[in-house]
Amino acid sequence: MPLPEKALIRRIRDRAAKYPGAGPHGVIGIGDDCAVVPIPRGHEALVTTDFSLEDVHFKRVWHPPESVGHRCLARALSDIAAMGGEPLAVFLSLAVPPSLPQKWVDGFLRGLLTLAREFNVSLAGGDTAKSPGGILADIVGLGSVPKGKGVLRSGARPGDRIYLTGELGASAATIDLLSSGKKLRPREFASHFFPRPRVAVAGFLRERGLASAMIDISDGLSTDLGHICDESEVGAELESEAIPVATVGNAARRVDLRFALHGGEDYELLFTAPPKKRVPLRIAGVAVRPIGVVTRARQMFLVQKGGVRQRLQPQGWEHFNK
Amino acid sequence: MPLPEKALIRRIRDRAAKYPGAGPHGVIGIGDDCAVVPIPRGHEALVTTDFSLEDVHFKRVWHPPESVGHRCLARALSDIAAMGGEPLAVFLSLAVPPSLPQKWVDGFLRGLLTLAREFNVSLAGGDTAKSPGGILADIVGLGSVPKGKGVLRSGARPGDRIYLTGELGASAATIDLLSSGKKLRPREFASHFFPRPRVAVAGFLRERGLASAMIDISDGLSTDLGHICDESEVGAELESEAIPVATVGNAARRVDLRFALHGGEDYELLFTAPPKKRVPLRIAGVAVRPIGVVTRARQMFLVQKGGVRQRLQPQGWEHFNK
Repeated sequence: MPLPEKALIRRIRDRAAKYPGAGPHGVIGIGDDCAVVPIPRGHEALVTTDFSLEDVHFKRVWHPPESVGHRCLARALSDIAAMGGEPLAVFLSLAVPPSLPQKWVDGFLRGLLTLAREFNVSLAGGDTAKSPGGILADIVGLGSVPKGKGVLRSGARPGDRIYLTGELGASAATIDLLSSGKKLRPREFASHFFPRPRVAVAGFLRERGLASAMIDISDGLSTDLGHICDESEVGAELESEAIPVATVGNAARRVDLRFALHGGEDYELLFTAPPKKRVPLRIAGVAVRPIGVVTRARQMFLVQKGGVRQRLQPQGWEHFNK
Repeated sequence: MPLPEKALIRRIRDRAAKYPGAGPHGVIGIGDDCAVVPIPRGHEALVTTDFSLEDVHFKRVWHPPESVGHRCLARALSDIAAMGGEPLAVFLSLAVPPSLPQKWVDGFLRGLLTLAREFNVSLAGGDTAKSPGGILADIVGLGSVPKGKGVLRSGARPGDRIYLTGELGASAATIDLLSSGKKLRPREFASHFFPRPRVAVAGFLRERGLASAMIDISDGLSTDLGHICDESEVGAELESEAIPVATVGNAARRVDLRFALHGGEDYELLFTAPPKKRVPLRIAGVAVRPIGVVTRARQMFLVQKGGVRQRLQPQGWEHFNK
């Protein structure tokens, strides 16, 4: 059954109420002009917004609705993590075509709310509309961080070591398989369909004051490292051998290096730390690997095993339909 | 010239930088994973999100881009006002079709940023994407209010008086004229094209503790009063003669009462106040009128001059293409 706009608001409100315990104490959510969210004492607010647009960020034939809802929220949680912050509440603007089955919306909300509950954030508001085209979602993440302690992109200094959580390239490799017409089981390609935002790792790094700059891998390593270099006015050298290349599927096939270097939407954390800081090789169950060093010269290089240096250009992640 | 996604981000960032002085001290904005926004001491955060979708909330042939940008932001500021809050920062998610001229985006940003500067809020972040259909904007408003002092929809009590700022119906009447094929000069129909969010009125009401419940007229008087009644578990009686019906155009033509009762997007404030509170008839230059009373019986009535009572049903504002 299609969902008119008012019914959609009720649906979201009802579903959100079925995931109680999610969210910080005292949030006044859906059902007023604004949500009211207490910010912890001594903290400042973090805000991020991310589109999830049909045929730009997901395809209905590729992505089950649970995955679309999960990924939609994961983008926001990962952005908050990249600042070293704690998520507090999320807001969903959702426009759907009148013909969309209610089942799809229910699956989407199930995916989103399951992840929200896990990270203790409430779905505290948003907007709904009839979409003139495909499904349009915009997620807003509200988090907080102790005053002045947010980890920015601009704090990297020459000599800092560069670290990465987890492995890279699985998401882009999965898109590549889907594009070639392969049918995939989402649970076997969970890095793409159900990525894990690294909130706990980021919290550890921020509490210990380990990271000088941080970003999440949403546009691809070469592009996101480029953002840190731009904002910090530095360069970087990555050791090609050190870059953790993901495996995908039950066969654990190692993906192509170019997916690890330039593929996006891995939602791992890329951060820098001064050389005197001791960064654990495992944080909150996630592998953390040194992959290079920050340089004064404002260029990025990939250094091969034999020492050959090759320029690394940001090859921004373009969504799959571009 | 069309705007690829990366160029669009730069454009927004450059334009936002040209409106300095806008925004609270200390906001770290566009150029990191999240914006960092200090919340005033003793305050809690207010968050609202609102879609502005082409052919749902605006039409390119009717609305100049400056008006679309202005109205987009006005929706967020009005929601923050309806809580008695102060706006701090706004975030814009904007997806445009590749064919959209840069001139349109510049006009849109000019309209949005001019209003932002006037209300001292910074455009502190957002997202951009290629749109698979028309122009898609989602505005996020972040504001604050002293802890526990946010004016909710749920505080109306039987016996409270019902008040309204300004006049109603101009926006719906303007849409009606546009729908009939009339060409209009936006500055002559400013209530629709360039509505004024009632932030100063709301701040006055909250500081003096005058309002027991408040909402802004975005869906129409009958629907928005219905929201207050639902959330407060009360009813209402409005005096038909007391409802301030707007005039439009240079000829100052009085609009039809049904536009005042059911038309949306006027962005006036509807609030209730206990009978012992003295509510000024003019606040921050805006007329404030008593229009009815809150009742115990959970129904809404319109009372004619001669005393005839007639049921008032929420006739929700449906956007013009529904």
